[in-house]
Amino acid sequence: MISWKALSGLLLLVGSLQQQTWAKESKGHVSVVIVGATGDLARKYLWQGFFQLYGEQVSSGHSFSFYGAALSEPEKGNLAMSEILKGLACPADVAPERCALLKDQFLKLSQYRQLQTAEHYAALSAEIREQLKQEGLVEAGRLFYLSVPPFSYADIAEKINSSCRPDPGVWLRVVLEKPFGHDYESALQLSKDLKKFLKEEEMYRIDHYLGKQAVTQILPFRHENRKFLDPIWNKHHIERVEIVMKETVDAKGRTHFYNQYGVIRDVIQNHLTEILTHVAMEIPVNRSSSEEILKSKLKLFGSLQRLAKGSAVIGQYQAYNSEVTEELNKTADYISITPTFAGVAVYIENSQWDGIPFILTSGKALDERVSYARVLFRNQVFCNQNIVSVHCKPKQIIFHIGQGNLKYPAFLVSKNLFKPQLPLSGWKEVTEYTNVSLFGQPLSEYYVYTPVAQMDPYAVLISHIFQAKRDSFVSAENLLASWNFWTPLLDGISHEYPRAYPGGVDNANLLDFELQGNEVSFVHEAVVLLSPVQGRASSESFQITQGKYRTNEMVTAWAEELVSRLASDLHMAAEEAVKRSGQFHLALSGGSSPIALFQRLVLHHYTFPWKETHLWMVDERCVSLTERGSNFRNLHDNLLQHIKVPYFNIHPMPVLVNQRLCVEEDGGAESYEKEMSRLINGTSFDWVLLGVGDDGHTASLFRGCKLDVLENKLVALTESPFKPHQRMSLTFSAINKAKNIRVLVLGKGKHEMITQLSRVKDDPKKWPITGVKPSNGKLVWYIDYEALLG
Amino acid sequence: MISWKALSGLLLLVGSLQQQTWAKESKGHVSVVIVGATGDLARKYLWQGFFQLYGEQVSSGHSFSFYGAALSEPEKGNLAMSEILKGLACPADVAPERCALLKDQFLKLSQYRQLQTAEHYAALSAEIREQLKQEGLVEAGRLFYLSVPPFSYADIAEKINSSCRPDPGVWLRVVLEKPFGHDYESALQLSKDLKKFLKEEEMYRIDHYLGKQAVTQILPFRHENRKFLDPIWNKHHIERVEIVMKETVDAKGRTHFYNQYGVIRDVIQNHLTEILTHVAMEIPVNRSSSEEILKSKLKLFGSLQRLAKGSAVIGQYQAYNSEVTEELNKTADYISITPTFAGVAVYIENSQWDGIPFILTSGKALDERVSYARVLFRNQVFCNQNIVSVHCKPKQIIFHIGQGNLKYPAFLVSKNLFKPQLPLSGWKEVTEYTNVSLFGQPLSEYYVYTPVAQMDPYAVLISHIFQAKRDSFVSAENLLASWNFWTPLLDGISHEYPRAYPGGVDNANLLDFELQGNEVSFVHEAVVLLSPVQGRASSESFQITQGKYRTNEMVTAWAEELVSRLASDLHMAAEEAVKRSGQFHLALSGGSSPIALFQRLVLHHYTFPWKETHLWMVDERCVSLTERGSNFRNLHDNLLQHIKVPYFNIHPMPVLVNQRLCVEEDGGAESYEKEMSRLINGTSFDWVLLGVGDDGHTASLFRGCKLDVLENKLVALTESPFKPHQRMSLTFSAINKAKNIRVLVLGKGKHEMITQLSRVKDDPKKWPITGVKPSNGKLVWYIDYEALLG
Repeated sequence: MISWKALSGLLLLVGSLQQQTWAKESKGHVSVVIVGATGDLARKYLWQGFFQLYGEQVSSGHSFSFYGAALSEPEKGNLAMSEILKGLACPADVAPERCALLKDQFLKLSQYRQLQTAEHYAALSAEIREQLKQEGLVEAGRLFYLSVPPFSYADIAEKINSSCRPDPGVWLRVVLEKPFGHDYESALQLSKDLKKFLKEEEMYRIDHYLGKQAVTQILPFRHENRKFLDPIWNKHHIERVEIVMKETVDAKGRTHFYNQYGVIRDVIQNHLTEILTHVAMEIPVNRSSSEEILKSKLKLFGSLQRLAKGSAVIGQYQAYNSEVTEELNKTADYISITPTFAGVAVYIENSQWDGIPFILTSGKALDERVSYARVLFRNQVFCNQNIVSVHCKPKQIIFHIGQGNLKYPAFLVSKNLFKPQLPLSGWKEVTEYTNVSLFGQPLSEYYVYTPVAQMDPYAVLISHIFQAKRDSFVSAENLLASWNFWTPLLDGISHEYPRAYPGGVDNANLLDFELQGNEVSFVHEAVVLLSPVQGRASSESFQITQGKYRTNEMVTAWAEELVSRLASDLHMAAEEAVKRSGQFHLALSGGSSPIALFQRLVLHHYTFPWKETHLWMVDERCVSLTERGSNFRNLHDNLLQHIKVPYFNIHPMPVLVNQRLCVEEDGGAESYEKEMSRLINGTSFDWVLLGVGDDGHTASLFRGCKLDVLENKLVALTESPFKPHQRMSLTFSAINKAKNIRVLVLGKGKHEMITQLSRVKDDPKKWPITGVKPSNGKLVWYIDYEALLG
Repeated sequence: MISWKALSGLLLLVGSLQQQTWAKESKGHVSVVIVGATGDLARKYLWQGFFQLYGEQVSSGHSFSFYGAALSEPEKGNLAMSEILKGLACPADVAPERCALLKDQFLKLSQYRQLQTAEHYAALSAEIREQLKQEGLVEAGRLFYLSVPPFSYADIAEKINSSCRPDPGVWLRVVLEKPFGHDYESALQLSKDLKKFLKEEEMYRIDHYLGKQAVTQILPFRHENRKFLDPIWNKHHIERVEIVMKETVDAKGRTHFYNQYGVIRDVIQNHLTEILTHVAMEIPVNRSSSEEILKSKLKLFGSLQRLAKGSAVIGQYQAYNSEVTEELNKTADYISITPTFAGVAVYIENSQWDGIPFILTSGKALDERVSYARVLFRNQVFCNQNIVSVHCKPKQIIFHIGQGNLKYPAFLVSKNLFKPQLPLSGWKEVTEYTNVSLFGQPLSEYYVYTPVAQMDPYAVLISHIFQAKRDSFVSAENLLASWNFWTPLLDGISHEYPRAYPGGVDNANLLDFELQGNEVSFVHEAVVLLSPVQGRASSESFQITQGKYRTNEMVTAWAEELVSRLASDLHMAAEEAVKRSGQFHLALSGGSSPIALFQRLVLHHYTFPWKETHLWMVDERCVSLTERGSNFRNLHDNLLQHIKVPYFNIHPMPVLVNQRLCVEEDGGAESYEKEMSRLINGTSFDWVLLGVGDDGHTASLFRGCKLDVLENKLVALTESPFKPHQRMSLTFSAINKAKNIRVLVLGKGKHEMITQLSRVKDDPKKWPITGVKPSNGKLVWYIDYEALLG
């Protein structure tokens, strides 16, 4: 980037800046169109950013025109725009007379356009061509900065494409501001809509945090200091990472937007998630390749552990609801449950970060304004003196993005970690320590670095747009990966009541939250919840209930509570069996319902006696065990790879024998039966988990299977009406010998079958599930409200 | 325990304490014999302890005689003993006149005996009988307290057994003082020697730390507060446990003993290990059962991760060597490498403690005298305010055993953890906080409990001996389990030079040490080592060297360095293969040598790409895979159960097919070959680890195997001259296709074969290992000095 100072010599040379002067060595003409040119963002940052860009590029061989566009009539628009342009400020390092010269020229190059109809766009395009022709210039590109609400993006993109697209070979860049959708589906829709008119490489999605100096330098810092960081930038040395953006302001005046979005969509899904990727991603070999950086980011997104309701705590400042009620003209009994505070624990499932919490926190009406990423290292030193040794002081690295006690952007490295050897270009070391403490350490205990000159993120990003540095922007893939990650949590908490907090310093420790396993919860016991209004339908109004179904016990709840209960019951059964016999024999079904159970077990039941548990399959599809469709593969990916079970306790069904799948003569079923006989006392499983298909099948025992033939077998090859047709399955004889049978039924799709089954008599040939009749054991149905009530 | 105060009423009743007064309700007579009655320990603690026991028990119905015994002539002994008895102190809570009465009586009951020969013991026995007869008393028991060096234990035990054993039905208790051996072997020997004469239940091995009030109450505290502790007393909530005994004194005057033992044998193997078990063991249901407590302790010992050289750092205070030289009359060039300081990281491999360091530290000439066990909890709270919230302050529980800033024994619980609800009997809460800070928190941030009355540990233990509370003593099994645990470390560091430290506060942070993986090392870079004297043989003088063996590359070093090098080379090869092809196919041999490699990989190479690694077997014994003799079982227990490898990447040899072991027709070998073909590109392993038998065999390819028959096979059934005779093995064809072959040879036992092999030509029929000739790959020998040089 050429600094303004470098311009000084040049400016002395030219009496008046005539663009034509540069025509000979011209790199081409660039037309910049700010759509929404008189809005807040444009007034505050965009015009200033483009003015700065102009200053940087005036000597580069490019020529420019700047169009401020909006829906207003020209007269009104012109007035508003010239007000803004008059207010443009000179950067601190440019002499006033030179700046005046530049500003004068910038004003001459800028004009207002009404852009509403396709004709307006066509007229703009024609004018650009005419001007180029008159001035004998070649066109380099057109840059549209859409500073307008997202609902108009597709419409504007269509008009740009149809009526204002430059000729082939001339670049087109369209800059978009968040929000990019509301969840995965809407983001995908928006992305599809835009793709009709613009190519991905023509779109520049802005996340202004990617223009913050402390954020842009995270990867360079990690790279420059890899000698120190490589050995310690992992789960073995890092205790946790905190990524925080605290605000003192509230949402007043913005609730029209805010109430639909809330804190997670507003800043966590984008800003804080971007920081997370910069801290945790692998640094690609070629750091200047946007593609490689994107690839590395996507790889990280692929490793993120799925979020669930328990991954976050949410809050809402007390005044929020009345603000919303007033601004949105709601009735007095309106209750908003939009969170204005959230704390989320994110885990990355790879060998580098496994088990290390990344805590993402943001909120409005908090006690201070600050944003940072803090990497806290483990305390792995034992100090032998009864004085605090430097070795036992905290070890941390802080990417201080802005505000807070420190005021300026900075990187801080605890002095007992290492001295960053290669300072970043444009950054300087701070050696005069003010009397400030950060995270329990006075400033003097850190090596501190700060940018030589502070820059506005919009100015940085506008310059990056011009340079086509695409990794400073959010690609469609990146965006969708992020929404894909956040949407399950947003869905999970969509009916949750946030904890109310008074705001500011009065919050005291009301919002402190605690990690438990991979979940978080508020520490403070005095829970102040927004009370649900009478008559409001809410999932919380249903509790776990117990009843009877087909003469057996039944447990009913919403899916999540049901699965959590089933997991607890299973855990208890396992503990008891191990106490009694030293072992626990568990047979598990395939399908999607058990996955929720597996995840629950992994995340919450870390004391489950896996070492003493034998895992058996209820049934298997006749495919290779490593194939995605295999029930065992399902079990492996969702359960086995997250826990420690002895290899010998894992019993996949031998569907592949002699390199053939499920051939009767190969005796796979018999050999499974023998393995059961060898290991399980009386071949009676301690616990069998079954599902039921919407055709009434269970295990791989389907309607019309020759059930009588199977009577004296425990394991058999069966036929399914669905692909793959060949199956191996426990028989009713094996299932009914079990001490405990649990049937898990989840989802609306099962409602019809559950209703029908409640009416029919036992008829295993027609309704195989009715053949499940434990001879001595206990059968309990776990049916969620959706399956039970539709 | 009856307090002295409770005696007051009684003492008013009886004008003069005549034992005969109690004859009617007598519980029997007890004879106490202190062997070594005029030694240091007896003078300082034992007589006082027995005097206190007498005070407690005088009203219990027991009568007593006390014999002070030693080798001295009666006259000299009498004199020394009466000096000691005169100095007996009255407990603080007993009125002086009552105490004088008791003391007077105690002196009357005490007499000196010369005990040297069997005849002396027989005479004592006769006297006891005679006295009983005369006074019409029934004998309850005989208590021998051996306050003598351990080398005389067996001799004395023999004499007690042959000449002074009471009649059947009368108890015999023989109290022994540490050291109980020098390592596992010597402890076992001592234990065997004593067992010839005494039953285990007759022996009371003293570890006086088991009499420290803060130690005796750890289990009761854990039990009483189980409601709070159960959820948090595990790896998920505890960051680490520090068990520390720091001394300011040095070893001056004791080097005769100390120089043979060092700090680990002196205090860590016993005192600190006992505390470790109390903190970490499962609390048995029946806490009053010594057997159950022992069982639980032994279970814990069984879960301890094996210690290696890297598990400890050791130091020696600078003045030590000259003290030793002087006291032991050594020549001026004498160098003692006995450690006077050690820090050890102990890990417990069970689901409760897995991965949590227990740091055991002790040393002489340190900056303060203190001993404690500190349980530091993880920081799992995120605090949202820019002030230190109580939730984010440290959470810790300290069992303060004695001394230090606090002076008195105490339990401390951080107030943000929980308030212990059930105070221990005999303990009180401290509510007046002195201006003391412990572990970064002022006293006021803890709930503090301390004993109502401080008691000397010997008095406590003497009372426990009398009550036969065996869990306050060290059982033979406990002792051997502890030595079994410590001996490998003691062997590992037996040639290590300790770091020199100046002593006292001058140590500064010189002894601070750091955990890295499961190892520890000093943090301070300025390493001051005791320099080895010229000519002294030391393992350090050999470095890793490279050379040629049988025309191939060879790496040579001491076993530990060699294995560490092999592990690094393997890790690098794996990283490269994964980078190149996304996979790493590794074939491993059975036997004991690879175990060292597996342990090294588990403890040091936590970034090994296991997820992409396929594990194959070089050979297998035809036994069930779960049997101890199985190579796969070996691999499982030493490697697989400690790492995360996908199930599908694990390839045990199918020795058991159709419920039969290694039957040609069952096609196990062929199916392994097919699995190899399916998964390994060109069936060429990336890395094959071989060993060599002392008969020259490798894999399961033995002398006389029909090797030509195997030529077109990759896997074959073979015959071994050793049991089990049947084997499955990779053939030379499979091995020689590998990209890398490494032959690991460890130990003196291999020296002859290695020598022979260096001379012979290729002759696979006679020396199967000479058939290993990689067609395109690389063969490297890793031979340790013992195997190479004998």
